[in-house]
Amino acid sequence: MESRTYPEFSTRYPLLLTTFMKRPVKIYPDEIGVVYRNHETGEYQRFTWMQWYRRTCRLANVLKSLNVNPGKVGEPGDRIATMALNTHRHLELYYAVPCSGALLHPINVRLAQDHIVYTITHAEDTVIFVDDFLFPLLENIYDRIKDTVKAFVYMSDKPGLPKTKIQNIYEYEKLLSEQPDEYDWPYLSEDNYATLCYTTATTGLPKGAMFTHRALYLQTLHLLAYANLSNDPSRIFLGENSIPMVIVPLFHIHAWGAPFLAVLSAVRIILPGTFTVEGFCELVQTEKVTSVAVVPTILALLLEYKDVEKYDLSSLIQITVGGGALPLGLKTKFEKRITGLNARSGYGMTETAPTTITAFVKKYMSGWPKKKLDEVRVKTGLPVPGIEVEVVDGNGQPVPHDNKTLGQIVVRGPWVTEKYFKNPEKTADAWYDGWFHTGDMATIDEEGFIVIADRMSDIIRSGSEMVPTVLIENLIALADFVLEATVVGVPDDVWGEKAMAIVKLVPGASNTEEDIIEFLKAEGVNKGKITRWMLPKLVAIVDEVPKTSVGKFNKREIRNSLDRFLARAKDMSAK
Amino acid sequence: MESRTYPEFSTRYPLLLTTFMKRPVKIYPDEIGVVYRNHETGEYQRFTWMQWYRRTCRLANVLKSLNVNPGKVGEPGDRIATMALNTHRHLELYYAVPCSGALLHPINVRLAQDHIVYTITHAEDTVIFVDDFLFPLLENIYDRIKDTVKAFVYMSDKPGLPKTKIQNIYEYEKLLSEQPDEYDWPYLSEDNYATLCYTTATTGLPKGAMFTHRALYLQTLHLLAYANLSNDPSRIFLGENSIPMVIVPLFHIHAWGAPFLAVLSAVRIILPGTFTVEGFCELVQTEKVTSVAVVPTILALLLEYKDVEKYDLSSLIQITVGGGALPLGLKTKFEKRITGLNARSGYGMTETAPTTITAFVKKYMSGWPKKKLDEVRVKTGLPVPGIEVEVVDGNGQPVPHDNKTLGQIVVRGPWVTEKYFKNPEKTADAWYDGWFHTGDMATIDEEGFIVIADRMSDIIRSGSEMVPTVLIENLIALADFVLEATVVGVPDDVWGEKAMAIVKLVPGASNTEEDIIEFLKAEGVNKGKITRWMLPKLVAIVDEVPKTSVGKFNKREIRNSLDRFLARAKDMSAK
Repeated sequence: MESRTYPEFSTRYPLLLTTFMKRPVKIYPDEIGVVYRNHETGEYQRFTWMQWYRRTCRLANVLKSLNVNPGKVGEPGDRIATMALNTHRHLELYYAVPCSGALLHPINVRLAQDHIVYTITHAEDTVIFVDDFLFPLLENIYDRIKDTVKAFVYMSDKPGLPKTKIQNIYEYEKLLSEQPDEYDWPYLSEDNYATLCYTTATTGLPKGAMFTHRALYLQTLHLLAYANLSNDPSRIFLGENSIPMVIVPLFHIHAWGAPFLAVLSAVRIILPGTFTVEGFCELVQTEKVTSVAVVPTILALLLEYKDVEKYDLSSLIQITVGGGALPLGLKTKFEKRITGLNARSGYGMTETAPTTITAFVKKYMSGWPKKKLDEVRVKTGLPVPGIEVEVVDGNGQPVPHDNKTLGQIVVRGPWVTEKYFKNPEKTADAWYDGWFHTGDMATIDEEGFIVIADRMSDIIRSGSEMVPTVLIENLIALADFVLEATVVGVPDDVWGEKAMAIVKLVPGASNTEEDIIEFLKAEGVNKGKITRWMLPKLVAIVDEVPKTSVGKFNKREIRNSLDRFLARAKDMSAK
Repeated sequence: MESRTYPEFSTRYPLLLTTFMKRPVKIYPDEIGVVYRNHETGEYQRFTWMQWYRRTCRLANVLKSLNVNPGKVGEPGDRIATMALNTHRHLELYYAVPCSGALLHPINVRLAQDHIVYTITHAEDTVIFVDDFLFPLLENIYDRIKDTVKAFVYMSDKPGLPKTKIQNIYEYEKLLSEQPDEYDWPYLSEDNYATLCYTTATTGLPKGAMFTHRALYLQTLHLLAYANLSNDPSRIFLGENSIPMVIVPLFHIHAWGAPFLAVLSAVRIILPGTFTVEGFCELVQTEKVTSVAVVPTILALLLEYKDVEKYDLSSLIQITVGGGALPLGLKTKFEKRITGLNARSGYGMTETAPTTITAFVKKYMSGWPKKKLDEVRVKTGLPVPGIEVEVVDGNGQPVPHDNKTLGQIVVRGPWVTEKYFKNPEKTADAWYDGWFHTGDMATIDEEGFIVIADRMSDIIRSGSEMVPTVLIENLIALADFVLEATVVGVPDDVWGEKAMAIVKLVPGASNTEEDIIEFLKAEGVNKGKITRWMLPKLVAIVDEVPKTSVGKFNKREIRNSLDRFLARAKDMSAK
């Protein structure tokens, strides 16, 4: 008999990820729910929802056998970390850990090793679940974490443990096989902590954003409800026929919500291990994938891939682009390459779980010409219903809706992080005056669309003016011959800072720095989108634009190696 | 500056109806949001979302000027009652009252006058907002409530107050015009009470089910998310293009959620005053209404209406039927009459706010023939995601999924009523063992579909067997010549109870009691849907089947006037 009854189940029926987990197994127990393709061997594994649920129950029993302690309200349970790619096992961990009351810490394995060690130590992880792919990385850092981590669990498609110096190591599949396939999931409080996600730390040390079951439940529900509103083809209604492939790593802010959305919706979820262009194309073709979410970099990689025409990608109709602005030029080039799909932009950050703002075509726009609509679809967009977003000036006052006044994006709502783990100072830096301060700059246009301009730390201060780098980047990317472009400020004796553009051309293009400036003049200055003084004073054409661990342009790395880029840059100030 | 900041806005950002109210005014301020047609004069009023919002702000200021006290957690604010039909003013009250912290009590004006007086007195209403249509009713009961109600507000399309004995009466439009059109909506706790809805009391006195902002917010969000899952044409995706007309009275369990769903979705909402067949047809034609929710009675009224072909009803494609089982026969007849639309069933009750279970076509059924699909669409259905529903035997154990074992429906979830107002005994009668006990009987089939059988108090106990009356009712309604049918138990010396069918034929039909039994034998007994002993022993063909205030078959009234029906019934026990 359930120990809690009235009034707990009436006044405070808890919003738990457990509710999501139970839905597909109840309505579609025998349908294939989870498909995993090992990106190294190319082998597939398919699980019905019942099989996946049984494995997740076994895993919860494993956690109990490892003496993992659940948390309570205000006090997190033991931190259970993952060093894992997008596999079915990682998805099992996404439910077994929080739903049994412990705290899931998906380690961003693309961080610098010092930062990885820092997050493990700071989180005080007690168990680490590690993929065979990532085992060498764990061995590298083992000596620095072995005194605090109590156990390691090795996850592999192949049976057996590798030869290793690592102590207290167990085999995932063996542990599962020894446990019963039923588990009595507790009715936790919705305020129990569920996940701990560290920021990618473009400045300073990573900070651990904490999320409760309530926060993750409510974000998922609002996103699903929101998807039911727009009538734009870029949000075409797929319902249960949607087949999402999860490209965004599960260690990167809940893969933008995919494991929660897919399980609640009971749609088949495709897990590709890690992204490879070949694996992507094969999975879309084989599994009839309909929807993916990606960083802009992925679109660029697919554009560069010479064999893309060999695959049937016609099932793929929806692409959400986040983690960076979606340049209209990149969208256009991509949709020309893979017909029938429609890319649109979204915005969020680690601390917002992440989705906060997404593209939205208003109903009175439905008759607009495609070109004008596409401009709306790359505007960062409107706040997801349920979350409040403002763009404020230095005094905390909303900026006018004039499409030009820059301000900082501030947010509050049910799924903004409660706090940084063990970091009251950083929490107080961000949470004040009733708002969470994102550190991102934006403008708002006459119709209420929020247009991301820049990180506050990236904006170029030239004289008394501010140059939003994203604006210039998106303009450069409009050129047919440009694949990727980023803009950073470099010190200047006269202006304080001046803009340097770093550009990668599309394969085979042989355009010059002059072409880039000419294009900016024609499409930017002459069309009134930028002023003449915003033109980059330096242009460098490069083979690779540096990226962060999550695929964003890495402006910090560029600033750290500034001499190298300056050496390649051509002075265009006279143009 | 907002007084609350961190951590209230992170850990407990409140789920408030206020969030819904603000959305359309933010994204579509200048679009027509609310259309009201006076069913007596036929005159239309149209309001943009901004106009509607400004009026709602004025109304909140009116409440302040009337010294209405807001509540706090665990303690309701002043009870503000409405005696109102489906008008724009009622919709304004639906937001101004709860969002300013008071408790909205929409009086069911179709209850018996004694019960109306009882609910006003029991709720301790301090202000009553009354429509001119319903003013005579208020005058009738005035002497019995005048000592407790402090003020009355008269709502009419025409200026001026009527001559009346009622003291402390104000004019709605005048009060609004005197107040500013801005209001500083408070950030209430989500656990503040928002509404108080009395049951229609088929047995005993009405009970007041209380709902918090949280409960109403979460029901709406889950319903909207759920609508995004099914791919069945009966749930065709309309998004922002949906134009709902609200037929279910706003005084009947939040009109099944319509005022919350429409405002959050920012879709145009059509308010017809009260239902008339002419008004219904005109509004569908004029406003291009796409969706309505109705009780089965309304379908029967439209089927009887001889002029229905004179109207263009082609925009109407979705009908949700609740408040009673949807007989497949009624669905079929109706869809033959009005082509292009698709009716499906839902289930709920006052205490569940109400929607709990709705029709759902599983994705693997999509290729099924229409006839078989239609059988699924009238099955009461599957629980809305987020709510737990079980069918349990007398020991609280789940019944087998065998499509025949009867049990009681029990529910728990975020939007089940917290408690009955000032009625701990009735609360304890319903809330025990961790579940709210509905008093409704159902079976579950092999695929998990819950099929409503009967109210526990209506089920016929014949010998040691139970006859679920809804099963027989739905079978009779399959006959082409039947418009409506209900079945009640009447005392019997041998069996304890025996079944009496009360049947209304379609206009012009001249069929006999024998035809009804023959039909039941052919379609029920011979096809294995019922056993021979379940056949009604008595059949009465009548001009009107008694209905409750909300359009359900009124079995209590039939039992109270049993002699009258027995006198008209023909003994069919030998057939």
